Amino acid sequence: MQLIDQRFLPHRFVIEDISTVEQMVTAIREMHVRGAGLIGASAGYGMYLAAIEAAARPAVAGFDQHLASAAAQLKATRPTAVNLSWAVERQLKNIVDGKTAEEKVALALRTARLIAQEDEEHCRMIGQHGLNLIQKIARKKAGKPVNVLTHCNAGWLAFVDYGSATAPIYAAHDSGLPVHVWVAETRPRNQGSKLTAWELGEHGVPHTVIADSAGGHLMQHGEVDLVIVGTDRTTYTGDVANKIGTYLKAVAAKDNNVPFYVALPSSSLDWNMRDGLKEIPIEERGAEEVKHADGWLEGRHVEVRVTPEGSPAANYGFDVTPRRLVTGLITERGVCEANEKSIRALFPEHAP
Amino acid sequence: MQLIDQRFLPHRFVIEDISTVEQMVTAIREMHVRGAGLIGASAGYGMYLAAIEAAARPAVAGFDQHLASAAAQLKATRPTAVNLSWAVERQLKNIVDGKTAEEKVALALRTARLIAQEDEEHCRMIGQHGLNLIQKIARKKAGKPVNVLTHCNAGWLAFVDYGSATAPIYAAHDSGLPVHVWVAETRPRNQGSKLTAWELGEHGVPHTVIADSAGGHLMQHGEVDLVIVGTDRTTYTGDVANKIGTYLKAVAAKDNNVPFYVALPSSSLDWNMRDGLKEIPIEERGAEEVKHADGWLEGRHVEVRVTPEGSPAANYGFDVTPRRLVTGLITERGVCEANEKSIRALFPEHAP
Repeated sequence: MQLIDQRFLPHRFVIEDISTVEQMVTAIREMHVRGAGLIGASAGYGMYLAAIEAAARPAVAGFDQHLASAAAQLKATRPTAVNLSWAVERQLKNIVDGKTAEEKVALALRTARLIAQEDEEHCRMIGQHGLNLIQKIARKKAGKPVNVLTHCNAGWLAFVDYGSATAPIYAAHDSGLPVHVWVAETRPRNQGSKLTAWELGEHGVPHTVIADSAGGHLMQHGEVDLVIVGTDRTTYTGDVANKIGTYLKAVAAKDNNVPFYVALPSSSLDWNMRDGLKEIPIEERGAEEVKHADGWLEGRHVEVRVTPEGSPAANYGFDVTPRRLVTGLITERGVCEANEKSIRALFPEHAP
Repeated sequence: MQLIDQRFLPHRFVIEDISTVEQMVTAIREMHVRGAGLIGASAGYGMYLAAIEAAARPAVAGFDQHLASAAAQLKATRPTAVNLSWAVERQLKNIVDGKTAEEKVALALRTARLIAQEDEEHCRMIGQHGLNLIQKIARKKAGKPVNVLTHCNAGWLAFVDYGSATAPIYAAHDSGLPVHVWVAETRPRNQGSKLTAWELGEHGVPHTVIADSAGGHLMQHGEVDLVIVGTDRTTYTGDVANKIGTYLKAVAAKDNNVPFYVALPSSSLDWNMRDGLKEIPIEERGAEEVKHADGWLEGRHVEVRVTPEGSPAANYGFDVTPRRLVTGLITERGVCEANEKSIRALFPEHAP
């Protein structure tokens, strides 16, 4: 199978061939693919590759062993996105129904496809529900553009299609509503300035890249009508883990009465965690990402060193925005409040 | 005269010779020198250079004309730091007392030196008053390091010596208190990861560089004992203009009950402005700074392009933190609350 190696965007479009679990593990861990939905879909296909590899083994016991080992490896790649373990567990649960190795492989492929199709469909629905919110704001702005601020990339690059946070933006733009996006660059990996800006530009959506620090200033001066971000894991009580810096935007949005929405397919909901700040594992990545900046120089993709040689750095990948700062969750089934009662009302099948 | 061209730190230590007003105007505008105190001191010496140039003119009318023109040029370099116009006005007021061109030049030199000496002395006193605050926190931490978060560079590079925000940190470190500094990198110019990290490293102060987005996460997890930042202009009512992103740290500090202090010599107080958010001019710099990142590659200082070619960017240099989010101001005369009454009590000579 093939995926886009996102590390080289927007400057180069690289397609990577993946044919083993090991390659998929590397692709997820090293962020060739990233974003909650896409990590889930990739893990789903990773388990399909694991089933193919397992079927090539002589003994049936070897099949389950290889599958369990692949599942553990895939789940260990990134700790924060719940879509990863959700997709792997879903595969394990389904594959077990196969009586023969061939049946198991066929089930794994069907499930991998289903995960990807559902992600696409859920993001499309998120776009429709989010569009209603933007339309309401547009009516008050009398033809002036609706200014949306987003952080990191929860666009179609982060999902199978459409994206979560960007789906309402694309839906608004495509329906003719004037919309403009403030794209926070999202240091240290710059998923905003590299991926979101590129996506929006390709789609023709007006946008402006800003430093991560600039979001508060814009809100103070009435330049942000709403914030929409994605999430890597949201508790069933409404606490939202997302790219580091999301919390700062949320607390500033609250301080300025700017609506703060989180767009998520239900696969990003964690039905086992109650207290996001205490329970959601936060990935710490290599300090080198903070010490360096990467970009393009005379046609070459290079990393430049910013910090002094002797200065240590720390690199927290995510933070948790407490539910009290979240105006609402935009899911495939509609918009709900960020609290247990409202979330469970939309997803009654997850009753405790 | 000579100054450190800070654009190349921490990777190269470049001394620049300045012998004309025009060179000083360029050095301030292009940020060879930056930081409220140093901008004030540089402007003071810029006016001395203007007096020398004016004295070389034949007619006395030419003297005042050249001085006025230099004053206007210097004041136009950077809009947000009030130290700039404060130093220029102070020079104009003093130079006028000279009866001959020679006397005027001598007065300009004396005033320039005085501005620099006062800045040094004021920062030293800020260090002592801030040390008291850190000592109080240290007593509660039973030997564990006091974690200070700072943003941008308000260190000795930003002033004539000591710095404002870093003065209490140096004073604490030098007195044997264990202190550790979280250095926010401060995109887009990276004054944190380049200048503050370098300064602290040279002085042997333990520190860790973080992305600007990480401050809130650290506060949520009890990893920040206090925030100390500098300011480019603070109204007599306590509203604080400082590097873009300061407001986000302040609102997060409030949300987590972390004390948020602003260190400033009284030359950064604006006695004419009441409402910081409405009145303080915010510098907008070139979009190229956001589109690019600069650093070192194989011994060369280079700029790499991060954003897609077609994506616009915006670059707001500062934001305003409203007084309600500020725990206190650390001035050369002591610590006061961020409100008109408390500020005027420390500086009664500025009574309305």
